[in-house]
This record gives sequence, structure tokens and C-alpha cells, in this order.
Amino acid sequence: MIQTGNYPSKALADAVEAISSLPGVGTRSALRLALHLLRQPAENIHRFAAAVNGLADSIHYCKTCMMVADGEQCGICADQRRDHDTICVVESVRDVLSIEATGQYHGVYHVLGGIISPIDGIGPSDLTIKELVARASAGKEIILALSGDVEGETTAFYIYRQVEGSGCTVTTLARGLGFGDDLEYADSLTLGRSIVARQPFKP
Amino acid sequence: MIQTGNYPSKALADAVEAISSLPGVGTRSALRLALHLLRQPAENIHRFAAAVNGLADSIHYCKTCMMVADGEQCGICADQRRDHDTICVVESVRDVLSIEATGQYHGVYHVLGGIISPIDGIGPSDLTIKELVARASAGKEIILALSGDVEGETTAFYIYRQVEGSGCTVTTLARGLGFGDDLEYADSLTLGRSIVARQPFKP
Repeated sequence: MIQTGNYPSKALADAVEAISSLPGVGTRSALRLALHLLRQPAENIHRFAAAVNGLADSIHYCKTCMMVADGEQCGICADQRRDHDTICVVESVRDVLSIEATGQYHGVYHVLGGIISPIDGIGPSDLTIKELVARASAGKEIILALSGDVEGETTAFYIYRQVEGSGCTVTTLARGLGFGDDLEYADSLTLGRSIVARQPFKP
Repeated sequence: MIQTGNYPSKALADAVEAISSLPGVGTRSALRLALHLLRQPAENIHRFAAAVNGLADSIHYCKTCMMVADGEQCGICADQRRDHDTICVVESVRDVLSIEATGQYHGVYHVLGGIISPIDGIGPSDLTIKELVARASAGKEIILALSGDVEGETTAFYIYRQVEGSGCTVTTLARGLGFGDDLEYADSLTLGRSIVARQPFKP
């Protein structure tokens, strides 16, 4: 019999256990990845571990928008060429990267750090809504770029109520058929709302 | 523009780069995994990194069979209940785990650490063939459990030539249709060889 459960070495078993704790990585894939790392030179393994440690030790959050940053302020908030009067409210860092990748947005962000979800025990006070309210003022636009599910709509509505007195404009993402989408394959909710919210044709 | 390429933080960029160096993990998945780690408490991240470092620092190789081990000898070679006269020769640690998982083998192993592959610049001297030859002697059985491709067959033939003078028996894995396989879906090479190598029917 092999010692330490199914693995011939405790160090290997520990590595497989750690790697398989990642979402979407099963024990089998974790073993494959651990054996891949094992074949690397020790300095590569150490560099990998140091990069992971950096996530705990070297990452800061921007004091303005709560975005991941190397220091007190993120690169977007520090950039004076961006429009600091337009604040795009998103759930997570991932959403910032997705919107940045479009190259279509030139304002700044506000990362909520989650979404209101009573079922997961996440209320408004767990998010950075107070900090967002402090940024809202007359002449500013707040874009609610949240997901279209119940939690997203609840959060959007809650934020709207909190900031509506400040005089800022509140907008939300356009929803409808995707560009290039076939009518045939569209879900009927999206198609129905796209008809109701039809827009002037711009040739 | 976001600093450091597409990532808002160098630490995040480093982690994504390290994780995406794993086989089968693209930049997108690496970002998802890095952001998952980022949401964990710092001690979990450190534990993850320590487990990875263990692969470089705490893993030894068995002095007899070259299997991954915690000390000088692996659990299989240390187990006196196993048959030390039957040596199963495999390419990698992974193969040992696969064979152990069958529960059908009670001998010991010899891990080659690779396979002869001139195209990848791997010759016999890069593998643990010399150590295997030293273990071969009259009365022992050497099972060549290598893959069925050109490299596997070349390696098997090379090893056979090296050990044939020692008086040991050399065997190889049975090949044919898988148990439960449909004839309809078998590849014609396997089916053809299964006919040629037909065996007495045992009711």
C-alpha cells in the first residue's frame, strides 16, 4: 500500500490538496499540475510560490475605488486623462478588467466587492456602498454595471435609493440583443424586452 | 490605461503569469484562479504557497525505484509484504499511481523518469535505466509497462537488450480490446492485433 492515502509522499499530497482547493480543479487535474511543477527546477517552483504569496502580501486596494492596486491609488484613479465625474459601479475586479478590455470606457470605477445577497448573508454594509455614496455629488454620473439577475437588480435599486438625493445622474448598461445575434437563438425575455425598448434607427 | 499591461497590480500580474504557466491553464482561467486566491484569507494563501514550495524542498526520490517519497525509501519499497522480485518499469510517478489504483499489482516499481525520445533529446542516459539494470538478476521478473507508441516500444526494446543477459524474465502489459469494449468502436489496429493474439477461451 502507498503511504499517506493515495500519494507516495506527504509533500505531494499537500500540494495536490492545495491545488484542488481551487475552483474547477479536481483531484486528478491537481495531481497533473503538481507533477508538472515537480518536474520544474526548484527555482521555478519557488518563483511560483512567491507569486502566490504576493497575492497575500503585496496587493493593496485603491482608497478611492477599492480596485486592486500596488499602492494607495490604482492606475485608473491616478490617471488624470480619465473622466473622474463618471463612476462605473461594478461587483468585482474581474468586471473592471472586462470593461477595460472593451476600450470603450474612459471614466473611473467603484468596486463593490460583491453584491447584495441575503441568501449568502451579504448585506449592504458588507459592500463599499458607503464609500460610493461619499463619492456621489451633483454633476456626476453613476453607471450601475451590475448583473441582470435578482441580486444585481436589488443592489442597483438599493444604490439608486442611497445616491438619488445627491443630485448625480444614475444610468445602467444598455440591455437587448447582442450585436450580431440571430433572432432565432435569442431567449424570449431578451427579445421581448428588446422590442419594448426599441430605439431610433441610426443609418 | 491600466498599468502593468492589462492588470491593475504587478502582484496580480505576477500571480496570473505564474498560474498560466501550468499546462492547460490559459490566461483567463489563471486570472479567475488568482482572483479566487485573492479573496481568501492571507493564511490560506500562505498555506497554498507553502504546499507548492514543499514540492521543491520536501520531496525526495526513493533510492531503489526513483519514486517520489518523503525520505530515502518509498512506502512501496519499504513494504516487506510486496513481491520484491517483480519489478514494474514505468515512465512516471503518475503511472505508478494509476497501477496502484487498480489494486491488482503487488510487486515493486522502477520509475524511468521519462521515455527515450530522440526528437526531444532524451536518450537512455537521461533515464534511470542503469539503476534498473543493476536491479535485474536471475529469478526476477521485469514488467515493461510503457506506452504503446514508438517511443514506448523503442524504450522497451532498449531495456530488453540491456537486461536480457541477467537471466531475468521480461514481460509486457497485455494489449487487446478493452474489457467491455464494443467491436464496432474499436480501432482497426487494436482489433486486428486482438485477432492475431487471440487467447484460449476460459469459461
